[in-house]
Amino acid sequence: MLNNIDFLTKPEKDEIKARLKKEQEKLGALQMKIKEHKLPVLVLFEGWGSAGKGTLIGEVIHNIDPRFFKVATLKLPTEEEKRYPFLYRYFEKIPEAGKFRFLDSGWMDEVTRGVLEGSLDEKTYKNRIESIRRFERSLTDNGYLVLKFFLQISEKEQKERLKVLQDSRDTDWRVGKYDLWQNKHYDKCAEVFEKYFEDSYLPSAPWYIVDAKSKKWAELQILETMNQSIETALQNASLSVPVPQNVFPLAKSEKLADIPLEGKELTDEEYKEKLESLQAELRDLHNRLYRKKIPVIIAYEGWDAAGKGGNIKRITESLDPRGFEVHPIASPEPHEKARHFLWRFWTKMPRTGHIAIFDRTWYGRVMVERLEGFCSENDWKRAYNEINEFEKELSDWGAIIIKFWVQIDKDTQLARFTDRQNTPEKQWKITDEDWRNREKWDLYEDAVDEMIQKTSTVYAPWHVLESVDKKYARIKALTIVVDELKKRLD
Amino acid sequence: MLNNIDFLTKPEKDEIKARLKKEQEKLGALQMKIKEHKLPVLVLFEGWGSAGKGTLIGEVIHNIDPRFFKVATLKLPTEEEKRYPFLYRYFEKIPEAGKFRFLDSGWMDEVTRGVLEGSLDEKTYKNRIESIRRFERSLTDNGYLVLKFFLQISEKEQKERLKVLQDSRDTDWRVGKYDLWQNKHYDKCAEVFEKYFEDSYLPSAPWYIVDAKSKKWAELQILETMNQSIETALQNASLSVPVPQNVFPLAKSEKLADIPLEGKELTDEEYKEKLESLQAELRDLHNRLYRKKIPVIIAYEGWDAAGKGGNIKRITESLDPRGFEVHPIASPEPHEKARHFLWRFWTKMPRTGHIAIFDRTWYGRVMVERLEGFCSENDWKRAYNEINEFEKELSDWGAIIIKFWVQIDKDTQLARFTDRQNTPEKQWKITDEDWRNREKWDLYEDAVDEMIQKTSTVYAPWHVLESVDKKYARIKALTIVVDELKKRLD
Repeated sequence: MLNNIDFLTKPEKDEIKARLKKEQEKLGALQMKIKEHKLPVLVLFEGWGSAGKGTLIGEVIHNIDPRFFKVATLKLPTEEEKRYPFLYRYFEKIPEAGKFRFLDSGWMDEVTRGVLEGSLDEKTYKNRIESIRRFERSLTDNGYLVLKFFLQISEKEQKERLKVLQDSRDTDWRVGKYDLWQNKHYDKCAEVFEKYFEDSYLPSAPWYIVDAKSKKWAELQILETMNQSIETALQNASLSVPVPQNVFPLAKSEKLADIPLEGKELTDEEYKEKLESLQAELRDLHNRLYRKKIPVIIAYEGWDAAGKGGNIKRITESLDPRGFEVHPIASPEPHEKARHFLWRFWTKMPRTGHIAIFDRTWYGRVMVERLEGFCSENDWKRAYNEINEFEKELSDWGAIIIKFWVQIDKDTQLARFTDRQNTPEKQWKITDEDWRNREKWDLYEDAVDEMIQKTSTVYAPWHVLESVDKKYARIKALTIVVDELKKRLD
Repeated sequence: MLNNIDFLTKPEKDEIKARLKKEQEKLGALQMKIKEHKLPVLVLFEGWGSAGKGTLIGEVIHNIDPRFFKVATLKLPTEEEKRYPFLYRYFEKIPEAGKFRFLDSGWMDEVTRGVLEGSLDEKTYKNRIESIRRFERSLTDNGYLVLKFFLQISEKEQKERLKVLQDSRDTDWRVGKYDLWQNKHYDKCAEVFEKYFEDSYLPSAPWYIVDAKSKKWAELQILETMNQSIETALQNASLSVPVPQNVFPLAKSEKLADIPLEGKELTDEEYKEKLESLQAELRDLHNRLYRKKIPVIIAYEGWDAAGKGGNIKRITESLDPRGFEVHPIASPEPHEKARHFLWRFWTKMPRTGHIAIFDRTWYGRVMVERLEGFCSENDWKRAYNEINEFEKELSDWGAIIIKFWVQIDKDTQLARFTDRQNTPEKQWKITDEDWRNREKWDLYEDAVDEMIQKTSTVYAPWHVLESVDKKYARIKALTIVVDELKKRLD
């Protein structure tokens, strides 16, 4: 148990000093390797109140160039933060390639505190644990080093420290209510913490319980663990990791080639009539969503020139502009490329009650990134599961997720490309890259079939929009959106 | 007066319809020009409660591709937002080149509401007006189109609208306390609004008061104004704007060549002793800053290899890691280049009580951007004033601003470059660009002299750190930081 854990015997002062010097220099040298090998390092400091998290982070970073690390202190989520999924603010803080991110408390603190304060029921706790395990595993799978330290002090030690802090006007403010509560309910806390260690155990991101009674000795334990872990991570940088089997319930899906396109059309009159009535309905539903604080995520993928833009426009026309945002997704910028491929999507998630529409999405990983070799085979093969997990996270949070594949045939694309090329106002819409992608049509079709099959989960299925007649596709999209929102609201 | 303004006579229904159609098509065509010419368009909607801001934004955006605009609704600042300068959340929301940003209320609402609620005294109101005028002018100077609409309805009209909204359970929630208060104190509000229009009048960003009684007619007025303004802005895109004369009190400054470097050195013993005592002092001061919620901004510029990194490290070593952040500034990424040059610095400002250290800064505008031709001559010549205004804004907010130029001579740089080239662990620090910049030493020196002379304001003066002996420079930096913080805290 935490209170009588078998720590290594604390060495003599001189030995600590000598070993510290060695490790400090080592970390100083390793930071260059980290930069060179673009290793992102996430270091999470958890521990008892007044165990010295801030102080120890302060000591550790002395050995690192200030340009290579960032520190964040995570308090309990604010009202604004509570309008986002649980992992949102943590994902936002992951380090860039080649840099350190130190966190002074994080998801362990939020979850265990919730349990101790009684605001987190058992079911939610289990969900949180699952989210956390997936989050950490997805980071380490993608080459992140995740280090988790828990600073351990005894009940007595904590009591003494809190008293010293409270006795001085200069430090009194550093003692929070929860710190005092912890000390009064030390055993109960220890129990919850220990359970959390077990539940969140991950071979690729284990817990290190640090004997934090003496500052120097704690620092030494941390530095030795960090250096050793960094060396291992650098050696393993190019290792592939297992591609997990799918565990999510899949919806029925069809191959693109088996979806008939002919006859999927509407007359202008049919279109106009349906458009008006569906848009009116959507307008009303958007109001209700907003009031019920339900978040909605609409993802568009499809062939170039399939008509995504016009389709999106017919959706947004009926939405209150204060309650939605369209995110056009281009190739990632340097600061995005330097992070987990889902980072730039996590950070664009809507608040509760809002709608986020993505014009191209995280599925780029298993399409363009796969086919152009922007990631490794191991990367894109793992991505199906990572994406299913990501969407599960959003779905569990309460989001309605609607994914559209806008489908046309090769001839239709050619006709539209040619039209764009020949119409001055449309020329901005066509680039050399579009023509190059067109040459890889068959490869893309295989990738799309695999993607639709592997990521059509029951909580976030794909919908194919037959778009040889754009009017038909727009009405189909609106109908699906209206139906899905209604299903939830009724 | 607002209540009996001489609006144009509302045309007949058919005429409105015909003109609307024309303007809608025009805006649809203009959006492509905006994209092509990279014009950023900021459209601010202010107006009486229930005047229809949201609805009208909704109508206007129907004519624009959803990929080319963003809408933001700005409520009163949250507690978290209040820890940043007044302009922070507005600057963050400026549009990208080639795109629209629509704002549903903004700085006018915040300021006039402050006046009406009595939370903004006259002096602060004046400061706010000055901030706003500079903000808008700096945007238009930098090629932004800034459109400001105020939706006007009469006291009677507002009263009726509020009643209709309140009468339905579905819309009741849209009526806020402030809306009702406005209606009860209509004349007083009108007076404050009118004063605001006068005070915030800018030839390059005038106010358009829109007769908002009829939705269609309001839309037409807005579209006609928008289209006309966009056409003008597109024509004027390459125009230069006046370089304003300096209005800020300047501190005394010297030319780099006149600052002796020899003899500015410390023995190892002197260094160690001073370092320890200054760092201890800084540690204590940081604690006090944090509690008094004073923000600090430390800006580092200097020659390549002058020793900025090591200097910064000696500062951060004594800071609580939870209370500072170091921002290494490289060349701007695409999303940064697409905005006002100060945007990426505004968005990195510290919260109150925190310290932000910039390793290279906004002064890139008048050094590398000037010398490499990354901006026009008119751009960098205006930048001295824009930077002085920016720092004045921060200083008025309460920030302590400390700017360091880390100075060495040409021979010292050569010796350090050579050392870096010959030492494997240091090679990452030297690039071809460093050698190229070195060839332009004299041009840079002139630019730096001009920069120091023109931007050494009394509220944010430059400090030159003689760094041939890095120890000397570090102690000098620490001494200045300690002195400046003490001055404020005592």
